[in-house]
This record gives sequence, C-alpha cells and structure tokens, in this order.
Amino acid sequence: MKRVGIVAWGGTQFTMEDRKVADLMAESARDLLSGMPDMRGRVDAVIASTSDNEQYLAPIVSELAGMRPRIAHTVENMCSSGTSAIVSGYSYIASGLADMALVVGAERHNGPGRTLNWDISRGEFKKTIFWASILTKSYKRRFGISANDLAIVPVKNRAQAAKNPNALCGKACTENDVATSLRITDDLRLFDCSRLCSGAAAVLLASEDAVGEVCDSPAWITGVGQKTLSASFSKLRPLYGLESVRAASEEALQMSGRTAHEVDVAEVHDAFSVCEPMALESAGMARPGSGVNASREAYDTGSFRINPRGGLIGAGHPTGATGIAQAAEIAQQVTGQAGPRQVDGAHVGLVQNMSAAATSSSVLVVES
Amino acid sequence: MKRVGIVAWGGTQFTMEDRKVADLMAESARDLLSGMPDMRGRVDAVIASTSDNEQYLAPIVSELAGMRPRIAHTVENMCSSGTSAIVSGYSYIASGLADMALVVGAERHNGPGRTLNWDISRGEFKKTIFWASILTKSYKRRFGISANDLAIVPVKNRAQAAKNPNALCGKACTENDVATSLRITDDLRLFDCSRLCSGAAAVLLASEDAVGEVCDSPAWITGVGQKTLSASFSKLRPLYGLESVRAASEEALQMSGRTAHEVDVAEVHDAFSVCEPMALESAGMARPGSGVNASREAYDTGSFRINPRGGLIGAGHPTGATGIAQAAEIAQQVTGQAGPRQVDGAHVGLVQNMSAAATSSSVLVVES
Repeated sequence: MKRVGIVAWGGTQFTMEDRKVADLMAESARDLLSGMPDMRGRVDAVIASTSDNEQYLAPIVSELAGMRPRIAHTVENMCSSGTSAIVSGYSYIASGLADMALVVGAERHNGPGRTLNWDISRGEFKKTIFWASILTKSYKRRFGISANDLAIVPVKNRAQAAKNPNALCGKACTENDVATSLRITDDLRLFDCSRLCSGAAAVLLASEDAVGEVCDSPAWITGVGQKTLSASFSKLRPLYGLESVRAASEEALQMSGRTAHEVDVAEVHDAFSVCEPMALESAGMARPGSGVNASREAYDTGSFRINPRGGLIGAGHPTGATGIAQAAEIAQQVTGQAGPRQVDGAHVGLVQNMSAAATSSSVLVVES
Repeated sequence: MKRVGIVAWGGTQFTMEDRKVADLMAESARDLLSGMPDMRGRVDAVIASTSDNEQYLAPIVSELAGMRPRIAHTVENMCSSGTSAIVSGYSYIASGLADMALVVGAERHNGPGRTLNWDISRGEFKKTIFWASILTKSYKRRFGISANDLAIVPVKNRAQAAKNPNALCGKACTENDVATSLRITDDLRLFDCSRLCSGAAAVLLASEDAVGEVCDSPAWITGVGQKTLSASFSKLRPLYGLESVRAASEEALQMSGRTAHEVDVAEVHDAFSVCEPMALESAGMARPGSGVNASREAYDTGSFRINPRGGLIGAGHPTGATGIAQAAEIAQQVTGQAGPRQVDGAHVGLVQNMSAAATSSSVLVVES
C-alpha cells in the first residue's frame, strides 16, 4: 500500500451568502491550484463532497478548474461527507489507481444536509437539534456537568475562530453571552449550536512517489478509521458517549501506531457544544466526563490544540466542506504552517468527523 | 495491490413503479445476501450508487440489510454512478482498507438523474435526447449509416432482454416496429431510446484473501479505466466517436494485459441505439463505422456477446443501478452462470458505462 500525503489545501470564506455549490467548489479548487497551474494536468482523481442535490459535480468542477482527471465522482455521507471523500481519495492513491487526488467539498447555507428525512426517531422536524438535545441531557446527567461547564466550548472555539480568516464567526464571546443566548431546547442555547453555512474547502493528496512534485514535507495520512453503526438515532447506545467515534479512533490510531496521548492537535466535530467533550473522550484524548476540563485547560493556557480553526461552532458548518477544512487545518498544523493558530511543536494530528448523531464517524491520523 | 473479485450479485426487477431508492437498495442487498446471512458481518464497506437526492443512503441500506460496515457512503456520477461506485469499492479493497465491499445502486423512474441542469449547451430542457440526437446525426453522416441500420440495436437488445427476468421490457420487436415507433427528433424514434426506470442491482467485491469465504471461482476485476473530459457537451470532439470511452478502454485493457479482440462478452452503454456501435468502436471491439455490423452479426448468429442482459434499451436504465447490473451480468457470464443468456466459452468480459453524452466513461475488464 502506497503512503499518501496531504500536499496542498485551499478554501473559501464561510458565509451565509446564497452561492451555488459548483461555484464554491471551483473557487476552492482554483485557490488550491493557484501558484501551481501545472498540477492541473497531474490530478488524476477529483472527488467532490457534498450533501447538495446538484448532479455530476466532480466533472463540473474539473471543467471549471481546468482538469481532465480519470476518476471523478461525488461522495455523500451527510456531515462527514468530507472525510469520507478524503478516505476515498486516499484509497485511489494507496491502491495505485491514482497518483494525485483533489478532494473538494462544499455546501450552501440552505442545502438539504440539515435534515435526515428517513429517520422518524429524530422528532417531528427531523432536525439535528433533537438528537443534540438528547445527547446533551444524557451527558450532563451521567457526569454531573452543567450548561455552564459546557459553555467553554463556544467560548474557546469562537475565540480561536477569530484567528481563522475563513471562519463564519469572527467574534469572541463570554460564558455569559452563551448563557443568555436564545434558549432553543431545555439543554441547548443558540451559542451551543454550529451554523450551517455556505463554503468550500479542498485538499490535494499525493502518493509518496508524487509528493515531491508539490512540496518537500507533506502531512502524511498515517491512520484511517471509520465506523457505521446505523442510520437511526434510536439504535444508539450509550447516549453519553459516541460509540462510532470510539471504534473509528481505535482503528485509525492502531493503523498509525499511535496512542491518543500522542495527539498534539485535534479537529473534532463540535456540531453542538456537548459534541466536543464527547468526541475527545470517545477518541481516548480525555477520560469519560473530563472532556470539558481538557477544553478549558487548553483555553486557559492559550493552546489551540483542540479545534484550532474554531471548530464547527466558530468556523461554521458547510457540511460537505467541514471534514476537508478540518483535514486542511491539521495538515497545516503538523507541517508548521498554521500561522497565528499554530500549536507549538505539533507533529501528530487527529481529524474526527461524524454524521447524523454519530451514527457513523470517520477519523484520520495525520503526521509530519 | 490486492486482487479484487466479484463474488456475488443481486438485484430487483426493473419497473416503472414509484418506489423509494432506499427500499430498492435494501431489497437488492438482501437478495445478494440471501443464502449467506453470515456475510453481513464481513462486509466492511457499503457503497451506495444513485443520482437520487436522498441523503445518507449507505448507512440506511446498511441498517435495513443488517450490516455495520466501517466504510459507508454514496457515490454519484450520473449515468455511470454504478461503475464509479464499483471502482471506489475496488480501491478500498486493493488498498487494503477493506476485505469485502457491497456496492449497491438504485434509481426511481422519475428521479433527478435525467437532466444535467448545469450544462446549458444541451438545449432548452437539458434532456439527454438533445445530445443523443446530435451524436446520431453526426455518426450517420460520417459513416453513411441509416436509421434502418441502427435499428438492429433495439431489435437485438429487446430480444435478449426477453431472457433477462429483471428486464423492464420483455417484448421483442422488429425493425419495422422501430421504424414506425413515435418520432421524437429528426434522428431518434421511441424504440431507439432506453427508458429511465425504477430498479436496483448489487455486487459483492472481495479481496483475493477473502473470495474463498463466498465462492471458489470469482470474476476477477483485472482492468479499470476511467476518463473525465468535461461536463459540457459543447466541449466534445469528435461527435461520431466517444473519446472518453476510447481513453478508458485503453487504460482498462492495458491494466488487464488484454486486447479488445480478446473480449468474449461486453456490456456497453446503449442509452440510445447509436451508443452501442459508437461504444464498440471506441473500445476497439469494432472498426470505425462497423459497430452496427458487429451487433447484426451477433444477432444473426444467435450470440449474446453484446449486451446479453438486453442493454439499457431492453433492460431499462435505472441510472444508479445500471453500471452495477452490467458488472453483475459480466460476472455471471465469465463464470458460466448466465443461464439462458450464457455466451459459450466466455472468459474475458468488458463493462462500459458513461455519463452525460460520454463526457466521462468507466470501463472494467472482468475475467474468470
């Protein structure tokens, strides 16, 4: 199996503007390819990631960005479409079918990815807010965590997003802002929620034989883990942990030969405040019930090690782009190119992305 | 790179009924898994293929059919979604990320795959009929082929579909039936057109280490070729040949170490009558302008070697399922399990699937 590295990245501003997914993807691909136009002829796979309904996006983006790849198709897997697409690109290269794969994801703010119509167990409007509320209540009860404890997640992530020029939300907030924001359910306030938005992100993957055409030191994908438990929320147990994240993290870390304690920097899927501690715990980066402490400690010490680009809460959540933006951030971190968000000495990074109440998850380990 | 074999297949009847894509996929997966329920726990990748807008289909189908895979996502690439999904499953296994991949595709008869809204060069209603008409006119002019010459394609394929229990169209027709069927454009009559319909198909792929758990003699995928030229019809040249088919066939045959003359049986993408000779010629199985002779010779000699299950014209065209149904047919052919459609002594098979006026194509070489 050939080694696969992330050699370049690109993206657009995340906004609430109404833009077409194909145009967002093309802008992101052109951003990635800017400065290396010759690479367009070297890209032999283009994988488009989205939950949008537009057809034939990979060939459309290829044409718009001046590529004629061999392999081209869309990958859809709701909120974790981005990492699913990266793993797809990874496998084309690792299998030898491709040397370079451009993985590009986008969503529009009012896209269809916000609801899962199939699962009637989510409540009347099939919105993510239903399961997020249930998970939050369950987690708080199990570990004696308060809404105030969880408020560190939006406080930290909004502060970190202020250093991310592509973030939807550039404004920091206080714990009081979180506690006094609009109450949506018993356990969720407005500032606890990430916002679906318009935006795109792209990464270029290359085989070990081809990385040198783009850069000297790529971010190697050393671990891949995925797990699909179900599509229905009603099948999930327990509700105070994320079983698919546990399984996917274990697989990814085992493949990379790393332990969770060796992870220097992580992008985890904070669709709602409670998801950050739950993900850290399920990935083995914090003990059960202590995830909020890890987030607080990072914040208090000024470390960007957890969700450096501001997470979904700070950066926004264009579903098809999120996993790719997370991977692009970790690639920048482990290669020392994250600028004002750089975690000192980061060499081992982790990306965790999930769909539909963590009925499925994807985890990548990325190293310099 | 690990060798990959097709070890099992399943499908549903192709119909004009209004059925949900998730239900069609689940029926097809259960059909494949019937008689080997233990394999459900061995499937570590589920790839769903469709142009339908329903979200999160791979986890939904996994849950409905009793699987908890690691990898799961949808692949969309219009009419060739099916082969794109098979190549994706192939790469998961060849790269070592999975041992067994279930690839399942479906469409509903009134699904969104019939139009490509992005490409304004296709005419007012963005229908495939526009490009099909232009290709037909161009092909006829270039090679001095008449509408009557092309009629052999629906005549042969409808006759062969009568031996395919899952086919939409079970009725043979005469050349006169074709010539007197409803005129749709200058160069196309109703019987020249495949019909979008509801239906599903599935194949189970396994690594060389795992094939023995299912069967003694799999159908090995020995060649994979894909090419994406553009998304716009207006970029295509020439219009009397299929450049993406030529490139993809060349790549697939080279990878397999075969020549086009060694192909014993082929499934080619006859979305319209003219596509069959054009595909045979572009794949190297017939000289330019002689594709209709190859189809006629096969028909006259009673050989099912070209589109044995009846092609898209005879079997129907549920877009997300078509490439998978084609691959399932060729797997049955090269392993001698095609029953009344069996081509004597077939050992080398070819699958050709394409999208959007052959702006992109996928070709597989499959051997026993």
